[in-house]
Amino acid sequence: MKIRRMTAFAAGLLAAVAAARAEEGMWLFSDPPRAQLKAAYGFDLTDSWLTHLMRSSVRFDSGGSGSFVSGDGLVITNHHVGLDSLQKLSTAGKNYARDGFYAGTPAEEVKCLDLELNVLQSVEDVTSRVNAGVPPAATGNDAAEARRKVIADIEKESRDRTGLRSDVVTLYQGGAYHLYRYKRYTDIRLVFAPEQQAAFFGGDPDNFEYPRYDLDICLFRVYENGQPLHPADYLKWSASGARDGDLVFVSGNPGRTDRLLTVPELEFMRDVQFPMQLGLLNRWEVLLAAWSARSDENARRARDDLFGIQNTRKLRDGALAALQDPAFMGARQIAEDNFKQRLRDRPDSAAALAAFRRIAVAQGITARNYLRYRYLELGSGFFSDSFSIARELLRAGDERPKPNGERLKEYGDARRESLELDLFSDRPIYTDLEILTLGDSLTDLTEKLGYDDPTVQEILDGKSPRTRAADLILGTRVRDVAFRRKLYDGGSAAAAAAQDPMIELARSIDDEARSLRKTVESQDEVKQQAQAVIGKARFEVEGTSTYPDATFTLRLAYGTVKGYEENGVPVPSLTTLAGLYERAANHHDREPFDLPPRWEEKKAALDLGTPLNFVSTCDIIGGNSGSPTVNRAGEFVGIIFDGNIESLSSDFGYLDTQSRAVSVHSAGIIEALRKVYGVDALADELVTGHRP
Amino acid sequence: MKIRRMTAFAAGLLAAVAAARAEEGMWLFSDPPRAQLKAAYGFDLTDSWLTHLMRSSVRFDSGGSGSFVSGDGLVITNHHVGLDSLQKLSTAGKNYARDGFYAGTPAEEVKCLDLELNVLQSVEDVTSRVNAGVPPAATGNDAAEARRKVIADIEKESRDRTGLRSDVVTLYQGGAYHLYRYKRYTDIRLVFAPEQQAAFFGGDPDNFEYPRYDLDICLFRVYENGQPLHPADYLKWSASGARDGDLVFVSGNPGRTDRLLTVPELEFMRDVQFPMQLGLLNRWEVLLAAWSARSDENARRARDDLFGIQNTRKLRDGALAALQDPAFMGARQIAEDNFKQRLRDRPDSAAALAAFRRIAVAQGITARNYLRYRYLELGSGFFSDSFSIARELLRAGDERPKPNGERLKEYGDARRESLELDLFSDRPIYTDLEILTLGDSLTDLTEKLGYDDPTVQEILDGKSPRTRAADLILGTRVRDVAFRRKLYDGGSAAAAAAQDPMIELARSIDDEARSLRKTVESQDEVKQQAQAVIGKARFEVEGTSTYPDATFTLRLAYGTVKGYEENGVPVPSLTTLAGLYERAANHHDREPFDLPPRWEEKKAALDLGTPLNFVSTCDIIGGNSGSPTVNRAGEFVGIIFDGNIESLSSDFGYLDTQSRAVSVHSAGIIEALRKVYGVDALADELVTGHRP
Repeated sequence: MKIRRMTAFAAGLLAAVAAARAEEGMWLFSDPPRAQLKAAYGFDLTDSWLTHLMRSSVRFDSGGSGSFVSGDGLVITNHHVGLDSLQKLSTAGKNYARDGFYAGTPAEEVKCLDLELNVLQSVEDVTSRVNAGVPPAATGNDAAEARRKVIADIEKESRDRTGLRSDVVTLYQGGAYHLYRYKRYTDIRLVFAPEQQAAFFGGDPDNFEYPRYDLDICLFRVYENGQPLHPADYLKWSASGARDGDLVFVSGNPGRTDRLLTVPELEFMRDVQFPMQLGLLNRWEVLLAAWSARSDENARRARDDLFGIQNTRKLRDGALAALQDPAFMGARQIAEDNFKQRLRDRPDSAAALAAFRRIAVAQGITARNYLRYRYLELGSGFFSDSFSIARELLRAGDERPKPNGERLKEYGDARRESLELDLFSDRPIYTDLEILTLGDSLTDLTEKLGYDDPTVQEILDGKSPRTRAADLILGTRVRDVAFRRKLYDGGSAAAAAAQDPMIELARSIDDEARSLRKTVESQDEVKQQAQAVIGKARFEVEGTSTYPDATFTLRLAYGTVKGYEENGVPVPSLTTLAGLYERAANHHDREPFDLPPRWEEKKAALDLGTPLNFVSTCDIIGGNSGSPTVNRAGEFVGIIFDGNIESLSSDFGYLDTQSRAVSVHSAGIIEALRKVYGVDALADELVTGHRP
Repeated sequence: MKIRRMTAFAAGLLAAVAAARAEEGMWLFSDPPRAQLKAAYGFDLTDSWLTHLMRSSVRFDSGGSGSFVSGDGLVITNHHVGLDSLQKLSTAGKNYARDGFYAGTPAEEVKCLDLELNVLQSVEDVTSRVNAGVPPAATGNDAAEARRKVIADIEKESRDRTGLRSDVVTLYQGGAYHLYRYKRYTDIRLVFAPEQQAAFFGGDPDNFEYPRYDLDICLFRVYENGQPLHPADYLKWSASGARDGDLVFVSGNPGRTDRLLTVPELEFMRDVQFPMQLGLLNRWEVLLAAWSARSDENARRARDDLFGIQNTRKLRDGALAALQDPAFMGARQIAEDNFKQRLRDRPDSAAALAAFRRIAVAQGITARNYLRYRYLELGSGFFSDSFSIARELLRAGDERPKPNGERLKEYGDARRESLELDLFSDRPIYTDLEILTLGDSLTDLTEKLGYDDPTVQEILDGKSPRTRAADLILGTRVRDVAFRRKLYDGGSAAAAAAQDPMIELARSIDDEARSLRKTVESQDEVKQQAQAVIGKARFEVEGTSTYPDATFTLRLAYGTVKGYEENGVPVPSLTTLAGLYERAANHHDREPFDLPPRWEEKKAALDLGTPLNFVSTCDIIGGNSGSPTVNRAGEFVGIIFDGNIESLSSDFGYLDTQSRAVSVHSAGIIEALRKVYGVDALADELVTGHRP
């Protein structure tokens, strides 16, 4: 049950409407905004400053960001980024997520089950080689396959040569391809987590709100060859931290933005994709909230999924509101019309105008296939870990014998280790929760595709959705890791011989699911090619240099620590520990505004004026969770963990009046570690950069 | 914001599949199951026993049941039936629903704002007059209008002659029409309510579950001419109450069942209606739960709506599960095929076979119009009291000048007083909650009907859904009762002159909404006529006497106090006060398993072995909430408040193995009133039948 966390953030004007505003932008480290920073802030961005920040930054492959904060391999990220690992370590008897954790000695540090960290080492422009690999006459699937093949070749070559994880990243809607090389770390051990009550104080009601009072941090240590890593680059800790008016930078991995989409693509999201997603999220939220209320153990089992669902639901709500706002869509339509008019006024722009038309046609084809694609291929009809694993086993058997370039992307050689780490993870999977979610998904699938649909009839096998779900979950063996290993090693013959009911279910829909995927990915390819043509024309017409849409790769954002106004009331940039206690009191210390007992006990010892959270105008989005916020000196002054509610449309554009990124303050972190948790050794390591 | 409470219940075989099983049936008081009771229980059902029970039974016009339990006008119902009134009396300072209430003296009894109780006085068969009023050649709308007119005439005549509320009820799918005459009472005063924590202990998680531990009661006193009513009939209280194995009866107003539907009609519910409703319920539940979590006051304001939504959501989930179960639908299909085959084997059955085909065609027309009908006419796109009131004002102005028989049903003379009671109620309406729900509904409307739909464009008036909602709610004056009176009295001219934005919105969609209603109601008429033909043929073929589908009119059910098995584990028929304390302890006394403080304080004083709740096999459904459960002697032994989860498909059929009706036990009520609440005077009134 993976809901990729998408804690969103950000702010600024629509990239498609005008040139980037002052503080808009998720800039490439290979093409940073030197001129803008010099002009607006008198700041000289040097190569050494930039490289140091890049090598100090860490990507959590599970969907977040972090940074090295000591020379002994300590990595800081958000509690909600670490939550996936905390959850997988937890049992009915020991709840790392709820109760928190501290390892006083290295021996007490707990190894995570399937966590992978990536540290970017270098970036190489491979655009010309990728383009050369696609014959000029190729279109649609042929072009996509040719491109997939050359990309797989580049990744494999790089990996074989350097030993580094090597990913070719598509930038500027296919205008550029860059090869990103990462050091991978997989021996990651938990050092410290606060109680979830402290990390996520205010819970879902306060999520995306400001002022905030969250200690949303989690600390891990990276090991290599059984020893703590001693990274050459790590961030120096700023004890005073961020102040109002400071210039600050954010270095992290924004997951995805869609700021250059054409109007038909936005309309598809508005009319098809987001309504469908919100329907799913609402029903899952109701399902898991109702089940969680039945017992403490249910709540523990569902907590991670439920949080992810609530989080994504707020995000999609916010984005849909922007797309349904005539002020937004009208502006986008006018900007697109104006751009097309400027194209018409120029020679040689027929190709770009035709590209706009091709996108509209392709989007229409995707729209017509989207429902079945979402339920059958993206798996919305089969919400369960058991189904995901069963399909992975089936497809691994079918895909791995093929040449690398011809496989479905996730079975490529470059992703093999990540796939295996996930597939063989010993994380707990709960039979009761699996029956619940699969039963509900099959019910939903039957509603949406229709009871009489032949595929639905085949899936249900003559049973009711809930009975079928129970039979499948109780009958499958895929929750046994040894079984998974055996089938993975044995390939498609072993998968067939096992006669596992869940694998056979995945097999029964695989032809249709693959065919839907091919249809949708072909349209993506058409759009990608068309967008590359438009992107080129846009560059010729507008002549401006800007940043590409986010791609879950390392980016640099910058901005000012700055409050804002809401309904005429000023919201200051910083909150303090005193504010945390006030908010708890105003809610009678009731969940989710209850403080962990030690926070009540230690209140008198605290300097209540210490800053706890702060906002800045930096341009960020989901995936930036855990990103370090640094000052001019490159020192760690805070850690990004959220955006305010006004920032929820940042997927499509940066609007700078109210949107803000929210960080935990470095001074608040040290005050809490020393006075509330009494973990001076850890605080000393952060402040001095070395384990005492 | 009315979600008609539909707390469902019930159990037994499908009426359409076979003759009624032993304990199936919601029997007419005018045609009770004397023979079955004699045969199965040796019980002689006398006219005087029946009439006494009928006149002791009370219908809550807001959607529930109750009974007179003292000669001084005391009426008992469920807390969740009284909740609507408790909520309307509450303010930010005094929360009757949460904290409960007790009036120690008559002067302290609080008058409810718009509560109407009905006591059935007589039933008259008017089938031949109704049928005579519809010309044999008339079909579709013509027939419907003719029938509406003759029904309106009968109701008006009866009302003018007797002064009683007079409703013509359609029974047996149009096979019979009965005139029900009620005494109406509108001066209803609150006497006692427990805390909602005690009434609804276990909250949504325990709703529809068993074992249960709820004191789901609420007591009102009926006044007439400013004095307490002294009803000739009221139920004698049984101090010992129900025991395992007892024969018991339930007298109440089951709201609606659909046990004689044809397969195409069931398919419409399965494929169109229920999925759409569940989508709405899920999104409203998420919306109100998230908003409620933001503050105590939000939670108080949304509590009634949220409870109603969660309740209905569980119901629809349960019903949809039955409809998606091939065991259920397959049996229905076979039964229908068999019946048609028997028809084909007989002469003169062409009309009945044709009627089946007409139903299928009519259902298809409804299905194609259902989305717009639901959002525009049923108001799902405008979830707010303000819109409901605005439309009522608009339509009252347009409808009232028409002849009675030509009006939309809810504006008929017979319903005038009820309409005015609702329209001029001074119940609180919260601006913030109105903006929230209307904003979300307009968002949903835009998703479902499409951003570019001309009606949607007209509704949104160039604004985003949320902005438009805020403008409408802040701009309308319909939340001012004096304004409503003025417009109602002034008719359509006053409504037009007011230029109220919400009324103008209702006006702008009224042509389309009325046209959709006409289309759907015409199909309902076609189906109704066809069902009457089938019903007649069914009677000829099957020759059995049975009960009609429920119609929110008084019915008699009977059954046995009896436990059941769940996953092989026996569930006993009765629970005790001891069980209540155990369940609270198992949940750490955390909401919704927390006990009110006085329940903790008084625990030692209680006889913990006293029965609290019990189950019986009586056949009931939503609307039966608050029905008295009586023994052979006609004494009050308990009060219905729920059905277990196995009973959720009882809308379509009674299945007797596990479905159970759940009551509060009469002994538990007295023990709690005396020992926990210390209201001996009230307990004495119940036990002796008169105020001490």
